[in-house]
Amino acid sequence: MGDGKQRIQPRTLKGFRDYLPAAAIPREWLISRACEVYRSYGFSPIDTPALEYEEVLAGKGGEESEKQMFRFEDAGGRRVAMRFDLTVPLARFVAQYAHELGTPFKRYHIGPVWRGEKPQKGRYREFLQCDFDTVGTRSAAADIESGLVIADLLGALGFERFTVRVNDRRVLAGLLETLDLVQHAPAVLRALDKLDKIGPEGMAAELEREAGVDGARSESVLELAAIEGAPGAVLERVGALIAGSETGAAGGEALARFVSAVEAAGAPAGAFRIQPSLARGLDYYTGIVFETILDELPSIGSVCGGGRYDDLAQRFTKTPLPGVGASLGVDRLLAAMEELGMIEGSTTPADVFLPWFSRERLDDYLALAARLRAAGLAVEFYPEPKKLGAQLKYADRRKHKLAVIVGDDEWEAGSCQVKDLESGEARTVRLAGDDRAGFGDDLAAALSEVVKGRRGASGRPRS
Amino acid sequence: MGDGKQRIQPRTLKGFRDYLPAAAIPREWLISRACEVYRSYGFSPIDTPALEYEEVLAGKGGEESEKQMFRFEDAGGRRVAMRFDLTVPLARFVAQYAHELGTPFKRYHIGPVWRGEKPQKGRYREFLQCDFDTVGTRSAAADIESGLVIADLLGALGFERFTVRVNDRRVLAGLLETLDLVQHAPAVLRALDKLDKIGPEGMAAELEREAGVDGARSESVLELAAIEGAPGAVLERVGALIAGSETGAAGGEALARFVSAVEAAGAPAGAFRIQPSLARGLDYYTGIVFETILDELPSIGSVCGGGRYDDLAQRFTKTPLPGVGASLGVDRLLAAMEELGMIEGSTTPADVFLPWFSRERLDDYLALAARLRAAGLAVEFYPEPKKLGAQLKYADRRKHKLAVIVGDDEWEAGSCQVKDLESGEARTVRLAGDDRAGFGDDLAAALSEVVKGRRGASGRPRS
Repeated sequence: MGDGKQRIQPRTLKGFRDYLPAAAIPREWLISRACEVYRSYGFSPIDTPALEYEEVLAGKGGEESEKQMFRFEDAGGRRVAMRFDLTVPLARFVAQYAHELGTPFKRYHIGPVWRGEKPQKGRYREFLQCDFDTVGTRSAAADIESGLVIADLLGALGFERFTVRVNDRRVLAGLLETLDLVQHAPAVLRALDKLDKIGPEGMAAELEREAGVDGARSESVLELAAIEGAPGAVLERVGALIAGSETGAAGGEALARFVSAVEAAGAPAGAFRIQPSLARGLDYYTGIVFETILDELPSIGSVCGGGRYDDLAQRFTKTPLPGVGASLGVDRLLAAMEELGMIEGSTTPADVFLPWFSRERLDDYLALAARLRAAGLAVEFYPEPKKLGAQLKYADRRKHKLAVIVGDDEWEAGSCQVKDLESGEARTVRLAGDDRAGFGDDLAAALSEVVKGRRGASGRPRS
Repeated sequence: MGDGKQRIQPRTLKGFRDYLPAAAIPREWLISRACEVYRSYGFSPIDTPALEYEEVLAGKGGEESEKQMFRFEDAGGRRVAMRFDLTVPLARFVAQYAHELGTPFKRYHIGPVWRGEKPQKGRYREFLQCDFDTVGTRSAAADIESGLVIADLLGALGFERFTVRVNDRRVLAGLLETLDLVQHAPAVLRALDKLDKIGPEGMAAELEREAGVDGARSESVLELAAIEGAPGAVLERVGALIAGSETGAAGGEALARFVSAVEAAGAPAGAFRIQPSLARGLDYYTGIVFETILDELPSIGSVCGGGRYDDLAQRFTKTPLPGVGASLGVDRLLAAMEELGMIEGSTTPADVFLPWFSRERLDDYLALAARLRAAGLAVEFYPEPKKLGAQLKYADRRKHKLAVIVGDDEWEAGSCQVKDLESGEARTVRLAGDDRAGFGDDLAAALSEVVKGRRGASGRPRS
C-alpha cells in the first residue's frame, strides 16, 4: 500500500464460492447438456425472481430449509426472502398463471437457490438447482417420460453405468395397510430411510421404540426392504407381502407398467431397478419415486431424484395440480465427473491457440482467426507480440491442446505449423487459397478433424 | 376456498418479474448464442456469488447503483449485499485470484444483478447482465478483438444492420487540452452527453453556466461533436481540431488502427463508425469506448457498450489491472427482437408434436419419440390419450408447427401423417424399417429437413 490507499480485502462470504474457469467450464457444459435433454422432450424453460415475499416462500413453516432462508426487510418495508428451492416458486408460478399456461405444463428451471445452513465440505449457502416437472396430469405416461428423461440426462453427461431406483409410494402404503401401521407411517418411513445406516436390528429397535411395532411386523418391513432382483420377481414377492391391499396392488401394477415402458422406449437395459423400500421424504410424494445412483461411485448418493405428487400448489390455489418431476444434482454430478476423470480441467473453452508471432502481421492473424471461427472453431489469439516461448507457456497454463503457429517464414510461404501441445508434434498445413479452397480453408478442415476426434474420443466437457 | 384453507396470494414483488416460456425461450436462446461467441474467442466463463460482503460492493460510495443495493444483516451478523453489477465482483475476483488466473485473463460472466431502483416501464429490480472483459493487457489487439466480438454477437443474434460507434477517450482529452478545459472535464463531458437532448444552444448555455466556457470554445466542442462521415475524413477533421495535443494524436492513431483492423478481420463493412464526442460515463474509461445502435431501432438505445479502463481493481489490489470489455444489453435486445418480429412467440422448444392417438400403443409412441430424439429432433409427446382434436388444440396453443399423427390404421400400415399445423397440409411418411432404413428413420429424415429449413429461413430463436 505504498500509494497510501486503504484497500478492501478481496474475499467471499463464508459458505459462498466463486467459479473459476476450470470449474465454470464443466458446469456450463453440464447445464447446456441438461437443457438439450429437457428441450428434446418439450419441456420449456421458465425463470422466477431470486427474491419473493417472505410469506410466499415461508408459508408452510417448520421445515429445515425454510428456517435457513436469507430473509430481510427491503427498503420499502416489505418482508422478503431469497428462494431456498425452485419447487415453492414453481407452485406460486403455476397458481399465478394457471389460465395462461394450460395443462399439462412441462417446465424446466435452472437457477441458484440460497440456504443459510452450516457450511461443511461440499455444502454451500448458494447452489444451483436443475429441476423438471410435468404439472397438471395424473397420467402414468408422464411418470414414464420422467424416467426416460433421467436416463437421457445421465447418458448425455457421459455416464454409462447408472441405476435409477424406482418405487411407487402406494407399495409402501399397501404394506402399512397390510400391517395395520397406517397411523405410524412417518415413524416407519423414517426408520426405513435409516436402514442402510443402522442395519436391520437397529431398524427393528427403532420401529418398536417409535411406533410400538412388534417383531413379526418388523420382519415384514425388513422383508420388503430386502427384496431385490429382476422386476418380475421383485413384483411377485412384493405382491405376496401386500396381498389384500388395493392401493398396494395399484402401485405394483404401475411399477410393472413403468419398467416395461421404459424398456420399450429404449432405455439402457437394467438401468431401472425396483426398490420397494424407497420412499424419498415423508409426505410430499404419492406415486412413483426415483433416485439415481452412479454404479462407479454409489457413495456420492443420489444424483437425480424425484417423484409424483398429488397437489403442487395447494398453498396458493384450490385447483388440484398433480404432477411428476425430478431434480438433477449438479454439484454431485460435477464432483463425480471430477472424481471419475471425466473433466479435462482446461481453463479455456477455445479449441485452438494462435500466438502473435510476426509483430507486423496483426491484421493477418485477425483475419485468419476470423476464418477459423467462421468454420466453427473457437480460437484464442494472444493479444501481445511477445516471444513465442512466453506465449506457449501461457497456452500451456491454460491447458490448450493445439496451437497454430505462423511466423514470418510461414506467412511468406503461405503455410503454418499445427502443433499438438501435448505431444509436441507439429505438421505443416497450407494457408493460402487457390481455385480449390480459400484462405485458411485447408487449415480449418485439418483443425476441425483433430478437434472433433478429440471431443468424440474423450466425451469430456470441452465446449 | 370451500375447503376452508387459508391461501396465500401468488404474486411477485414489485419491480420483479417471472419469465414464462414465451419470454424464457428467446432469452435462453440469446444467452446461448452469446456464450458461443464469447467462447469462440477463448473467453472463459466464471461465476461469483449473488451475495457479497457489503464493504466489497459498496466501498466506492456515492454512485446511484450502490445506493440502490439490496443490503441486510445475515443470521451471522454480517453486513451483506446483493451484487448490483458484474464489474465490482470481477474486480474483487481478479484481485483475489490474480496469481492463479495469470494475465491476460479473458472472462465472460452472465448472471442476474439486483438494484432497488424505482420500477418503471422496462426497468426491473432484477435483471441479467452479460459481460466480457480482457484484463491485464494494454494491447490495442484486445480493443480490436472486443470490437469484433460485438459485431459477431449482433450477427449471431440475427441483426444485419447495426452501427458500433467508437471513440477513444484520448480524443476528448486532447480537445480539452487544446481548449484549456482539462480542469472542467466532467462538466464538458456531461454537457456533451446531453447534446442530443438539449441541442447545440442548450449545450453552449450549459457549458458557459457550468464551466465558464466562452462562445469560441463552445463552437469547437460543438464542431467536434458534429463531425461524421468515413473514418479517414473524420480523423482528419478531428486531427485539425486537436492539433498540438499528443494525447489526442495518440487517440486518433488508435482509432485509425482500430477501424482498419476490424475491417481486415472481416467485420461487416461500415458497421464501425467513429463518433468523436462519444464518452460513455465520466471517469471509468480511459481509451477506446463503444456503443452499439440497431439501425432499424435506434430509439431503443445502445445494446452493447463498453471500453478500455486503466485500472480495474484498485480498491482491492495495488497491482494495476488495465483492460477492455463490454456488456451486452440482454433486455434491450430481447425487446428489439420482439419489436422487429424476430421472435416466434412459441411456448415450446419442441420441433414436433406427437399426439397419443391409439390408446393401446403407448410403448410404440414412446419408442417412436425416442427414435426421433436420437436423430436430434425435440419431440413433445402428449401424455393422455384424449380425443385428437383436444390434443391438437393444445399443440396450437403452444404454437407447435409440426405434428406426427399415428392412429390405429397408420400403425397397422407402418406409416404416419406429417402435418403442417399452420397450413393444415399433411403427407404420409413410412414408419416401418426395411433393409434400407430402420424404424422411424425415414420420418426422422423428413422431419429434420423441414425443421432445418424452417430454422434457417427464419433465423429465429427456436432451440
